[in-house]
Amino acid sequence: MRYELYYWSGIQGRGEYVRLALEDAGAEYVDVARERGDSALMPFLRGKHESALPFAPPFLKAGRLLIAQTATILAYLGPHLGLVPGGQAAEIYAQQLQLTIADFVVEIHDTHHPIAASLYYQKQRAAALKRAQIFRDERLPKFLEYFEDVIERGNGRTALSRHSYVDLSLFQLVSGLDYAFPNAMRKMQKHMPLLRALAERIAKRPNIAAYLASPRRIAFNEEGIFRRYRELDSVR
Amino acid sequence: MRYELYYWSGIQGRGEYVRLALEDAGAEYVDVARERGDSALMPFLRGKHESALPFAPPFLKAGRLLIAQTATILAYLGPHLGLVPGGQAAEIYAQQLQLTIADFVVEIHDTHHPIAASLYYQKQRAAALKRAQIFRDERLPKFLEYFEDVIERGNGRTALSRHSYVDLSLFQLVSGLDYAFPNAMRKMQKHMPLLRALAERIAKRPNIAAYLASPRRIAFNEEGIFRRYRELDSVR
Repeated sequence: MRYELYYWSGIQGRGEYVRLALEDAGAEYVDVARERGDSALMPFLRGKHESALPFAPPFLKAGRLLIAQTATILAYLGPHLGLVPGGQAAEIYAQQLQLTIADFVVEIHDTHHPIAASLYYQKQRAAALKRAQIFRDERLPKFLEYFEDVIERGNGRTALSRHSYVDLSLFQLVSGLDYAFPNAMRKMQKHMPLLRALAERIAKRPNIAAYLASPRRIAFNEEGIFRRYRELDSVR
Repeated sequence: MRYELYYWSGIQGRGEYVRLALEDAGAEYVDVARERGDSALMPFLRGKHESALPFAPPFLKAGRLLIAQTATILAYLGPHLGLVPGGQAAEIYAQQLQLTIADFVVEIHDTHHPIAASLYYQKQRAAALKRAQIFRDERLPKFLEYFEDVIERGNGRTALSRHSYVDLSLFQLVSGLDYAFPNAMRKMQKHMPLLRALAERIAKRPNIAAYLASPRRIAFNEEGIFRRYRELDSVR
């Protein structure tokens, strides 16, 4: 199967969770907008096609299926790419964890855009400072300690019995948070040894290491979800 | 199968999407916290059990499975309760739509809590006024018109070939928005005839009508996701 991934060409964003799964599995895929430009997404967003209507990118074409929503794409790809352990309980748990990652990603994004995604950061800076402070003090520890507990319960892996797309997404989370909130992450360091070890292990997987070193990996930047605005990461 | 639903006893919240599915299907279930108090949730949130660790309610016990995240619960229940059409494409599309509903629910919640869920509304009122204005002007129309398009593409149903948990969740969305944003919803009325018809059809399903008339249906209130704060629904 040759997959077609549709996502904005200039950011890692939510598309990156899908890219990491495709890359780790060595799947054959085209990152369509990076080859043909972002306008290639538009006909699907406008519904000029037969199958499911996406609300937003990323979406994946897999044969006749068009699948939107990051977690749904990963739930589909998991069994096909060997990225989820077999059995209903593991598939359900993987999906539950992926949706919790998705919730966390919304909260990370909203630290810099608490009022509206359509407004410039500078227009919502005061609210962002407040939201980011509570995010660093309450939400970041709550989510990271939750995932640490999940791994601990699973005896060193993600409570799933073996490697999965959840591990890849947790790697992306840790990488992005290291970029955007280096000070807050330093404070978290001693509370997340298993999560840190997982992220380091994933970075060394041959296909992931090759991907991260390639031009296919877009650098973190201030158009994406993880943004390095120093004032949102001040340690008191 | 006798299901156990774990969710806060005083609000509809995210648990309501699960309650509606269980009620519509006439499933046997216990709404645990409403019988034994909210403290019944705590052992699971603290991980004093064997299976999957929930990050937050709602979660469902189904035999030996513990399933958290609303959309994951519904993806599991769908085939068991006859609440999703058969076939992979329909199951995937239902899940994609449910996740888009979940995204919308976060944005609805954050109109009154743009800075932090842990802060009183009065402490974030200025930011809420701004966020709610852009929500009414941009996001509410974008989401509702998207779901209208989805129904239209499906020829009068939700693009799924027959009744599903997505229909029940869309009913809940429309009901909650009618409660929280009556003015904004009046402005949307002519743009969502199919969504309105769907909501009216669901309200008349015998099991749903009986549920809505029963004490099991908690009234909308200002502790939940959909809150009627007049200042957040002012029409300009």
